[in-house]
Amino acid sequence: MELKQALQSLEDIQRKLYAYNTASSALYLDGDTVAPRDTAEGRGVALGILAGEQHRIMTGPEMRQTLDALAAHEGELDRLHARQAEELNRSVRQLTRIPAEEYMAYAQLTNQASDVWRRAKQTSDFALFRPCLEKLVEYNRRFAGYYDPDKAPYDALLDEYERGVDMGFLDNFFSVLRQRLVPLIKAVGEKPQPDVSFLHRHYPVEQQRRFSDYLMEVLGLDRAHCGIGETEHPFTLNFNSKDVRITTHYYEDDLASSMYSVIHEGGHARYELDVSPEVEYTVLAGGVSMGVHESQSRFYENIIGRSRPFIEAVWPKMRKLFPEQLGDVTAERFYRAVNRAQPSLIRTESDELTNSLHVMIRYEIEKALIGGALAVKDVPGEWNRLYKEYLGVDVPDDAHGCLQDSHWSGGSFGYFPSYALGSAYGAQMLANMEKDMDVWGPVGRGDLTHITAWLTEKVHRFGGLLTPAQVVANACGEFDPAYYTDYLTKKYTELYSL
Amino acid sequence: MELKQALQSLEDIQRKLYAYNTASSALYLDGDTVAPRDTAEGRGVALGILAGEQHRIMTGPEMRQTLDALAAHEGELDRLHARQAEELNRSVRQLTRIPAEEYMAYAQLTNQASDVWRRAKQTSDFALFRPCLEKLVEYNRRFAGYYDPDKAPYDALLDEYERGVDMGFLDNFFSVLRQRLVPLIKAVGEKPQPDVSFLHRHYPVEQQRRFSDYLMEVLGLDRAHCGIGETEHPFTLNFNSKDVRITTHYYEDDLASSMYSVIHEGGHARYELDVSPEVEYTVLAGGVSMGVHESQSRFYENIIGRSRPFIEAVWPKMRKLFPEQLGDVTAERFYRAVNRAQPSLIRTESDELTNSLHVMIRYEIEKALIGGALAVKDVPGEWNRLYKEYLGVDVPDDAHGCLQDSHWSGGSFGYFPSYALGSAYGAQMLANMEKDMDVWGPVGRGDLTHITAWLTEKVHRFGGLLTPAQVVANACGEFDPAYYTDYLTKKYTELYSL
Repeated sequence: MELKQALQSLEDIQRKLYAYNTASSALYLDGDTVAPRDTAEGRGVALGILAGEQHRIMTGPEMRQTLDALAAHEGELDRLHARQAEELNRSVRQLTRIPAEEYMAYAQLTNQASDVWRRAKQTSDFALFRPCLEKLVEYNRRFAGYYDPDKAPYDALLDEYERGVDMGFLDNFFSVLRQRLVPLIKAVGEKPQPDVSFLHRHYPVEQQRRFSDYLMEVLGLDRAHCGIGETEHPFTLNFNSKDVRITTHYYEDDLASSMYSVIHEGGHARYELDVSPEVEYTVLAGGVSMGVHESQSRFYENIIGRSRPFIEAVWPKMRKLFPEQLGDVTAERFYRAVNRAQPSLIRTESDELTNSLHVMIRYEIEKALIGGALAVKDVPGEWNRLYKEYLGVDVPDDAHGCLQDSHWSGGSFGYFPSYALGSAYGAQMLANMEKDMDVWGPVGRGDLTHITAWLTEKVHRFGGLLTPAQVVANACGEFDPAYYTDYLTKKYTELYSL
Repeated sequence: MELKQALQSLEDIQRKLYAYNTASSALYLDGDTVAPRDTAEGRGVALGILAGEQHRIMTGPEMRQTLDALAAHEGELDRLHARQAEELNRSVRQLTRIPAEEYMAYAQLTNQASDVWRRAKQTSDFALFRPCLEKLVEYNRRFAGYYDPDKAPYDALLDEYERGVDMGFLDNFFSVLRQRLVPLIKAVGEKPQPDVSFLHRHYPVEQQRRFSDYLMEVLGLDRAHCGIGETEHPFTLNFNSKDVRITTHYYEDDLASSMYSVIHEGGHARYELDVSPEVEYTVLAGGVSMGVHESQSRFYENIIGRSRPFIEAVWPKMRKLFPEQLGDVTAERFYRAVNRAQPSLIRTESDELTNSLHVMIRYEIEKALIGGALAVKDVPGEWNRLYKEYLGVDVPDDAHGCLQDSHWSGGSFGYFPSYALGSAYGAQMLANMEKDMDVWGPVGRGDLTHITAWLTEKVHRFGGLLTPAQVVANACGEFDPAYYTDYLTKKYTELYSL
């Protein structure tokens, strides 16, 4: 195959993959938002077949011939096409190790499992979800062996979410966090807690929706290209860099929940919308990895969104939208309330300080599950034991315990550590950003354009053009979790007068 | 290929086609409901590729080999597989008869024409649309020759929308309608009209949404399998027989608009939900033809929904939902208001009595256009002449005349007659239904289960297992348009005291 023909074929193949991703995303989005309750079956059949077709393209002769032709012309490829070929080669290699029937059956399983998990969580019925989870773990252990038989299964899975990260790296990472954060959390626990009662006054959904609109405006999210919906569990879905959707969940007795979901998902959306158009409809489109993605969402949510200058900037609007609820509250009291640190049960509602310990518990359970040291039936007991040990809390039921997250039902094992890594990357980015410019002055005026510009320059625009490690190096320099623990120590020492 | 292998391949191919239809439907639904404004481009790229993949399956070697193998085993096929093979053979034949370059050029033309038509309608500028329409007519005449060179071109096109229907059949059909309905409409026009002002009081959207929920309940639409959304133009979309969506549009100054959209689309949904599971995920899934589909939607909308017993049954709930707006209105006044008949300009807003004449005008123009007896430049003049002759109205401009419908710009010639046929089928079904049971007693108590059961038995369950003509024969016996004109004559004679 001539180079010109190979490049055309490379483009065609990637656009096809884009179309299949788009189709599957639309079905998932529909299933999670407006689809009637008992419609998972037909969607599952379609998703299974689409996954099969995608698999066929990935493992077919056209792909092989194209990649071989590109390899033969390796020296002539520009950076863009070289990276596309590299990523496709890797994906093909991983996929060809999974038999097509297993791949299709797995797609159907995750669709069904999401439905079962939703019902199991509603009724706090782990027994209902258990058979699905057993199958999911079984598949993932098998897939890990296909991905890289030389690695421990969990290392092989971790590598799928954050290239280059393994248990050795994470054991060390979490050990630093444990050493630095556990005493900090303990010290905080001995201090008086700020009043948070006003966060739980009655906040009507309609007003909260308007507040979401305002927050998206502050984040600079163009509503012609970024929609917002409502789901049980907030998420971000990107069709392409001109079509991104975020979702949130409104609780009328909790103002902060949706507020920080919107800012968090808005951070993910910001990243997706800022990726350079040159990688549109290719395998390099979208954010480069879960960890880097979480670094962005958590940067906007915690480092910016829970900062004093940001809250002072949005406070006038909040007072206007919720005059009765916030009439007797000050920005400073609000700042302290949304930064209250206290061990709790639910990861997604946990505070910036304790969040990484929730992640650490999931890391340890996944490591044991996939490693074979823990049986699925023992997950609730182990979950509850670890929550008691690290966070000192008693788990009342599985809905507030091991059924709280959607990840496993979607087949994601090895994803959780990315949250904690993202937090750590973000803190280090802040340190570098502060060297380059006045970060907080504009934030205090409700202007985030300089932050978005910095992150776009260092992170967003590349999409998958750089590897995750290159992006992290680009924005952070050499990774060091001490930036993260230093950031938390400084913030909480001031907040709690330690 | 062995029979067993051919049957497996037949099933696989159909499930793939189902998956592609489902994917495209999900993207259309998203685009029409929740997608942000400026996201059509990326969706268009995906939809184009999915259509190409579908075309590849339809015209590929696997399909050919499977159909050939089934043909070789024709005598051994059961009814289900024989019908599937018959439908697929026909679709493949029609698809492969159009040269690929013409097919692509035509796709570009319809895409462009839709845009030109929209602008032409906005400015009531037929001259702007005329060159597109000329090309569209030219292509359709040529395609008709590809479809079936032995038929008159318009007959070949009609056969694509309603198998077995041709000009001979329709000339007779519309001639009966013309003879019976034109004098009836004239007589109605000489009588005083009922008051409809209360339909245009202020009806808040939120209350109308609750009314929709109630109407869906009355129609027996299981919300776990049938969703309702909101779009500019109401439609029904079926993913499969366990997942159907309808949409409506709420106008706060028009209660009847959404009410009858919900019942109309609910009729389409009823059909889709009642198709037998044995044809699920095959080309026989879903309603059998446009005409039969319209017979069901119009049956529920007009024959049931605009009947006195139905309105009396839902009246208490309406009074409860709209106490201020309907406090001084009776069920009888409401019945008369929603059955007001009056010649008008716009087909989609026309009443039950005059609707078929709008369709007849389009039929006559299409017949002359495709047959070569009418030049495109003469369409506006002919349109206006026919509206004056049949409906007695003067067309003020082409936006309210021959530019009002989107069908021609989308390349649909031969589609319109299905609307009038559907109305006529429904009236004849009613006559047969009344022979079998007490139709109106239960309707007066808000119970439609006997109607749905009858229609499911005679029409719905078959899906595409029978041909459209067989379904019509099954429910109507020998088709006779006099049932329809008798039904309208009886209804409007009583309403207007003729």
